Amino acid sequence: MEEERKKESEFRIKIDRESDSYDEFVSQIKTLVSDENAKQLKEMLDGAHPADIVTLFRDLEREEELYLFRILPKEDQAYALVKMEEETLESFLEELSVDEISNTLYHIETDETTYLLSYLPSAKRELVLANLSKADSFEIRSQLGFRESSAGRLMSKDFATVSITDNVRKGIINVRKKAKEIEDIYQVYVTDEDGVLEGFIPLKDLFLTPINTKVAKITNFSVFAFHYDVDQEEVANTFKKYDLFSAAVTDDLGRIIGRITVDDVLEIVEEEASEDILLMAGVSEDERLSTPILQSVKRRIIWLNVNLLTAFVSSTVVAFFEDTISQIVVLATLMPIVAGLGGNAGTQSVTVVIRNIATGDLSFSNWWEAVRKEFTIGVLNGLVLGTVTGCMIFFVKGNLVLGLVVGTAMFVNMIIASLTGSLVPIVLKAMRVDPAIASSIFVTATTDVCGFFFFLGLATVFAKYLI
Amino acid sequence: MEEERKKESEFRIKIDRESDSYDEFVSQIKTLVSDENAKQLKEMLDGAHPADIVTLFRDLEREEELYLFRILPKEDQAYALVKMEEETLESFLEELSVDEISNTLYHIETDETTYLLSYLPSAKRELVLANLSKADSFEIRSQLGFRESSAGRLMSKDFATVSITDNVRKGIINVRKKAKEIEDIYQVYVTDEDGVLEGFIPLKDLFLTPINTKVAKITNFSVFAFHYDVDQEEVANTFKKYDLFSAAVTDDLGRIIGRITVDDVLEIVEEEASEDILLMAGVSEDERLSTPILQSVKRRIIWLNVNLLTAFVSSTVVAFFEDTISQIVVLATLMPIVAGLGGNAGTQSVTVVIRNIATGDLSFSNWWEAVRKEFTIGVLNGLVLGTVTGCMIFFVKGNLVLGLVVGTAMFVNMIIASLTGSLVPIVLKAMRVDPAIASSIFVTATTDVCGFFFFLGLATVFAKYLI
Repeated sequence: MEEERKKESEFRIKIDRESDSYDEFVSQIKTLVSDENAKQLKEMLDGAHPADIVTLFRDLEREEELYLFRILPKEDQAYALVKMEEETLESFLEELSVDEISNTLYHIETDETTYLLSYLPSAKRELVLANLSKADSFEIRSQLGFRESSAGRLMSKDFATVSITDNVRKGIINVRKKAKEIEDIYQVYVTDEDGVLEGFIPLKDLFLTPINTKVAKITNFSVFAFHYDVDQEEVANTFKKYDLFSAAVTDDLGRIIGRITVDDVLEIVEEEASEDILLMAGVSEDERLSTPILQSVKRRIIWLNVNLLTAFVSSTVVAFFEDTISQIVVLATLMPIVAGLGGNAGTQSVTVVIRNIATGDLSFSNWWEAVRKEFTIGVLNGLVLGTVTGCMIFFVKGNLVLGLVVGTAMFVNMIIASLTGSLVPIVLKAMRVDPAIASSIFVTATTDVCGFFFFLGLATVFAKYLI
Repeated sequence: MEEERKKESEFRIKIDRESDSYDEFVSQIKTLVSDENAKQLKEMLDGAHPADIVTLFRDLEREEELYLFRILPKEDQAYALVKMEEETLESFLEELSVDEISNTLYHIETDETTYLLSYLPSAKRELVLANLSKADSFEIRSQLGFRESSAGRLMSKDFATVSITDNVRKGIINVRKKAKEIEDIYQVYVTDEDGVLEGFIPLKDLFLTPINTKVAKITNFSVFAFHYDVDQEEVANTFKKYDLFSAAVTDDLGRIIGRITVDDVLEIVEEEASEDILLMAGVSEDERLSTPILQSVKRRIIWLNVNLLTAFVSSTVVAFFEDTISQIVVLATLMPIVAGLGGNAGTQSVTVVIRNIATGDLSFSNWWEAVRKEFTIGVLNGLVLGTVTGCMIFFVKGNLVLGLVVGTAMFVNMIIASLTGSLVPIVLKAMRVDPAIASSIFVTATTDVCGFFFFLGLATVFAKYLI
């Protein structure tokens, strides 16, 4: 037994891209594939986790991937598809036949099936659905009908229920029936005669209670349920807030139609956080290391072009003060300080606000709190940094008025930075646009324009003291 | 029954800060607290989730919070503490007596107890530990000994095991023993006679198998286990990669000493993502809406001061070219375009790279891939944007050389932006510093300095064609 365990963990280490022997392992696989030595490949990959097979795919050519994929057990095929990155998945599914796809689908839960089918062109999807049993294809069709990113799309239809009027014995029978198809049963949902959700029973309670006990007696009525149309971000925030392990999904009449488990939520939390961080910088929300370069460029360059436009606006503001600059060249050297610090202070504000929106701490009930806080921070930052910078300029350049001009411009720009940084995402949210979208570009544009305007404007007004 | 369910869900809505009746609800609570009407308060809050009570705390004064806290059931008290924000928790625990704290601790799992105790000053912690049973205090002391953010800190010591030489009956008996203290048992861990982890049995398999079956027969040997000293980020990435629901934690000899469930991981994923996004912008990793303003200012201003220094460096670079600028003032108006776009392109690169590091897609085995990709993107972005900008300048200003100078400077700066953006986080990671730390400030500093230098440098070389 000890031997067996060792062997397995040793194997796991093998498909680790960090390990020294990994390159050798890959070239071995490549040779076996080109020799079409299915038998030895199967031996080598026996027991490997589908997620690791997908990692291995990164270092193979498409033809090699397909060969490997086809010799995997059907169940592993399904999980390998689920674990593929979205861009690989789409082109990979194109290569597979309708039969190959439908054969794998029996081995995964309905939410995963729905996920995979959403990556097929609709004609091929219809063919795959026609290949499934009537019951399965009906279930999947109805799930595909739910709004994307809704609780309905996220849920699995594999769950066990028992009626509140039954006894524990019936509950155990129901679990036994489901146990074969469902890998992870942790609780049984309790419904009334019409299927309306009433509560749940943790699996251990069900099994440890005498079998003649009434279900109602051991039902936990504090059950969490989501309507199928609730947004996945709200689902995730509720799971986090209440430390849920699983929750039910109900239809308009309150009848249970699915369940969501915390592992589904894990992916959403990760996704939403990645989305925020990437969108803020003006990068497409799903850019990954494996995204083809031209696609990355195409998406990023859109925002850089927007940025180019905003940069021309700042440039026009500066051009407006060309006369002043030509008289007092030192202004050109100090411009970047005022604008640059404003940009970074604005980025700080926008980041904090976006993060608070994402975690649900900030909403329309308390947006004012956040803006007021950022404003106060802007004033304080502005006082400190404006004073420090003003004094430094005074000491270095020996001109008090110049110090005052820089300091004041910086003070004003810090306040503008904090207001823009906090208001932009809140306004976007109110307009039902993702608050993170390219926000750092918009915020730095504002702080550039305002920074240049106030600094050069003040300098123009007090020009005679600066020369 | 229907009535009861309705009532509960109605109540849940009540502690929703978004609801219209919330303000009224809070003022009702405040009145009852000032009247010290514990009976009616208990009725109003009966069945409320501790997480909601904590939400309510945000709108109460400390004295009111304490009054409410003290009338909660002990179990809810414990969960309320666990759900508090870290900053509130520390000062809240100061107000509670040693007895109050130790009484709540019996109701939560060891990982949560350890978490709470880490917020106590060590003298008070010792008193609380002395108040607990010997077994409990030993367990918690040993867990507090694990490194912060390690698997050992994260794990719960509440789990059920069975020896591989036993039969299913023994497994069920063990679960029954544990079932009273542990809320969520989903599997039983299988060990050899020395406690060395061998595998696990899902709870449903245990209960649905005839009780005389040998444990070995239904054991699943593909069990995931972490050494106690493994970093929590690695734990989270493994959970995500393999869609785990739970995993074991083992000591140096491979004996099981705890288990981690996916709900613990959810918090880490959220935390790590927040950390990245906030650190990148130069905001403290744990700044929240509720962080006191002065604390926020103190932490943010450190990075703004760093930014001030880098801004002075850029300013010095510009000052170096004062003569050229005084002759050709238009340069001052175009400077921000070259530097600004470089800054945003660099932010795009750094964001993508940091995100890939966090998700585990990028590591030391393939850092070169990421840098090469970003470099290529930099070249392509530079070609496109350099050409566009150069042409625009040529058409607007009617000077071909000026267009070429701006376009070339932008091309070079885009490449520098992509290299800095991708290398800075990788180098920080290699130095074992968080790759996200204030990276946007460092990257924009580099693109500012290089942008100004190349643009003004080229302009100086070709000055005679620009006047």
